Amino acid sequence: MVKLVLVRHGESIANAKNIFTGWNDISLSKRGIDEAKVAGELIKDIPDFTPTHIHTSLLSRAIMTANIISEVNDFLYLPITKTWRLNERHYGALRGINKDKAREIFGVEQIKNWRRGFDEVPPLAQDSLNDRRYNMIDPHILPKAESLHQTQKRLMPYYHEQVASQLIQGKDQLIVAHGSSLRALIKKLESIDNHDIVNLEVPNAEPIVYTMNDELKIIDKKILS
Amino acid sequence: MVKLVLVRHGESIANAKNIFTGWNDISLSKRGIDEAKVAGELIKDIPDFTPTHIHTSLLSRAIMTANIISEVNDFLYLPITKTWRLNERHYGALRGINKDKAREIFGVEQIKNWRRGFDEVPPLAQDSLNDRRYNMIDPHILPKAESLHQTQKRLMPYYHEQVASQLIQGKDQLIVAHGSSLRALIKKLESIDNHDIVNLEVPNAEPIVYTMNDELKIIDKKILS
Repeated sequence: MVKLVLVRHGESIANAKNIFTGWNDISLSKRGIDEAKVAGELIKDIPDFTPTHIHTSLLSRAIMTANIISEVNDFLYLPITKTWRLNERHYGALRGINKDKAREIFGVEQIKNWRRGFDEVPPLAQDSLNDRRYNMIDPHILPKAESLHQTQKRLMPYYHEQVASQLIQGKDQLIVAHGSSLRALIKKLESIDNHDIVNLEVPNAEPIVYTMNDELKIIDKKILS
Repeated sequence: MVKLVLVRHGESIANAKNIFTGWNDISLSKRGIDEAKVAGELIKDIPDFTPTHIHTSLLSRAIMTANIISEVNDFLYLPITKTWRLNERHYGALRGINKDKAREIFGVEQIKNWRRGFDEVPPLAQDSLNDRRYNMIDPHILPKAESLHQTQKRLMPYYHEQVASQLIQGKDQLIVAHGSSLRALIKKLESIDNHDIVNLEVPNAEPIVYTMNDELKIIDKKILS
């Protein structure tokens, strides 16, 4: 038996303003910091959860959340890996646009499809991110916009090689990531079909605790709040 | 030309109480958190300093300082390695004892020698640390008390293999560590002799900036405060 805990970052300043964020690097809001502390306390109460590694994205809102959870749990000493493969879904040209404004421009249905569909790709970003955090990565593999499916495809290699490879050795793992990158992962872990994924929401800072058997089959799932 | 920046953590609760700490895991004090923010601001003003990696110890006061500096500088995305080789010197049986009390028990001269001498080893710790952060390390190499010289011997392999190997490629590096582990490193970097190292103090949260040439010869040193 081994535990995998997933946490979406606390509220970001962009969440608070209802803006499409994706790969824009936005800090936690004051409320998001408090939410991360609460998530830390909730994780403290998980019986027998002793992670050996923390996995997060290259985005500050997830890393800050991971650091706050680590402080609360005395996990600061744990190795932490930050990878673009756990980044939020890349929202392409929608990045930085208010969601209500986007609905006016593109229509309610189109926005719903881009947000909740599995294979819908939003319009490509025209500008490059020009962000030094991606300087060390082959530009050929960096997206300019992603469907949820594409997000899943770039995330799963990391999950298999760096997370599942530890779980199978009985080592608990903690992933702190984003609404859509976690939806993509959960879809795979729970074999949710393309239609039902539309209805899956991952709220900020509510830890999802999977207990798995020796073959990494999920035998229990709890959402803490 | 490449830059190496060394920072001692901000004031810990034990610094504030004048206690020998070593490997005890003590948080930053409120003042220590503020000092770390100031260190972050000072680092922001270093011209052309773009580190590619952060190196710290397994102790929370150093990791918290590194995280705060990272927030201030938008460095959160940088890879961070936490290693026992950058830990504070292990103070053995002095761990947890008030420094004035220790002077009463062992005498002023003896304490001065243990604190400032290069080869003096304090009395060995009788109890084991029993701390899960060291569970993954071969117990045969973990110390029960260290001289500054022994601290240097376990630190330098990490410095050569993980820090200097990056500097030589022109990649700036940031090390956030401890008073004595940094004294041990500085002694080597600046070829300070055993006698003069007695007088070297590394204050909390004052970044030390080395500029090095292509052969890692130090061509400039600045202490920021």
